[in-house]
Amino acid sequence: MYIGRVVGNVVATIKHPAYVGYKLLTVARENLDAGLDSKYDIALDTVQAGVGDRVLVLDEGNGARQVLEMEPWGPVRAIVVGIVDAVEITHG
Amino acid sequence: MYIGRVVGNVVATIKHPAYVGYKLLTVARENLDAGLDSKYDIALDTVQAGVGDRVLVLDEGNGARQVLEMEPWGPVRAIVVGIVDAVEITHG
Amino acid sequence: MYIGRVVGNVVATIKHPAYVGYKLLTVARENLDAGLDSKYDIALDTVQAGVGDRVLVLDEGNGARQVLEMEPWGPVRAIVVGIVDAVEITHG
Amino acid sequence: MYIGRVVGNVVATIKHPAYVGYKLLTVARENLDAGLDSKYDIALDTVQAGVGDRVLVLDEGNGARQVLEMEPWGPVRAIVVGIVDAVEITHG
Amino acid sequence: MYIGRVVGNVVATIKHPAYVGYKLLTVARENLDAGLDSKYDIALDTVQAGVGDRVLVLDEGNGARQVLEMEPWGPVRAIVVGIVDAVEITHG
Repeated sequence: MYIGRVVGNVVATIKHPAYVGYKLLTVARENLDAGLDSKYDIALDTVQAGVGDRVLVLDEGNGARQVLEMEPWGPVRAIVVGIVDAVEITHG
Repeated sequence: MYIGRVVGNVVATIKHPAYVGYKLLTVARENLDAGLDSKYDIALDTVQAGVGDRVLVLDEGNGARQVLEMEPWGPVRAIVVGIVDAVEITHG
Repeated sequence: MYIGRVVGNVVATIKHPAYVGYKLLTVARENLDAGLDSKYDIALDTVQAGVGDRVLVLDEGNGARQVLEMEPWGPVRAIVVGIVDAVEITHG
Repeated sequence: MYIGRVVGNVVATIKHPAYVGYKLLTVARENLDAGLDSKYDIALDTVQAGVGDRVLVLDEGNGARQVLEMEPWGPVRAIVVGIVDAVEITHG
Repeated sequence: MYIGRVVGNVVATIKHPAYVGYKLLTVARENLDAGLDSKYDIALDTVQAGVGDRVLVLDEGNGARQVLEMEPWGPVRAIVVGIVDAVEITHG
């Protein structure tokens, strides 16, 4: 899992029916210094997150399908599973 | 999942029979600034995408097999699951 | 698996119920010279690890779910599975 | 999946019995400009590929096991699934 | 799979019981020029490998569990599955 920032939305008219009803969020990865990485995922939202939110992302298909109740199969790899209040980093 | 751009096709006469009937697309990853990355995947098409299309790519084998109705097994990792109309990025 | 250093905690009020009762640790990857990488994972704790501990991280969902007794499904990819006493590196 | 070039063979006397009878090929990844990357995989051959061949590589364990009829279990992650005749890249 | 070099051992008193009885090896990835990468895995040994050995590493959890007879579940992602006698690289 990683911490990310929702930076945008994806609009796709032609898409797999399993995605209907879900927001497709563009989530940039946050690095350890709380800056944003150039890496990102397109993730399905499960916690009513929106642009600007700092979020916890699960980047693993089997777990993601369970959360979406798509098990055992479903076309998904990354989902937003939490909204982050704080990340307490202690440089050790 | 990620956003990519279809930049080419792969022609392979000798290949696994599961691929027969599918287009093998070369999809370059798009980065957050909408430029193209040097990373790419060879992805099976499921939405009639073609060269130049901006697409949503699922890069996870179990989900990909479900979409292709190859479950529980099939030699695939990446598929094109949507054609992207717009990516609204808000640099935050 | 990799060796990491716990550098912080994640506080998330809104999150998937499966995470309730687990500490969410920010674990920076250690490189071969025992320095810390810029890569990290948010990992669930299973061995009472805390900030500053040098730990063994399992970064694979199926194995992680077994340890947490969440099988066959659960929203997790990385967990802390050991506290490292020593890493004996012989540059060969 | 990705396009690669077979650049060598691996000789290993002591190995898991599941590998007996298969060629272990060193496959360098090809990048979008058809040059070779520094990344590589050790892949099992399924299409009689040899050194110098341009090949399609499946880098996902579940699919690879199906092709090798090792399902549901087998110690493999990458296999060569096709010999590439042409990659038509349209920079666009 | 990839070729690596065993460069060290990990000593961990507090760890998941599934690891008891296995050596935890630090394996540095070898690159195509036979030099060592900065990337590494902590891998369980299955072929009596030791520091200095050149080895074949399987970096996929489902296959690794089969080799260890931990199926269907077990906290492992990488294992050493062979000792490499030679890697014949032909720069093509």
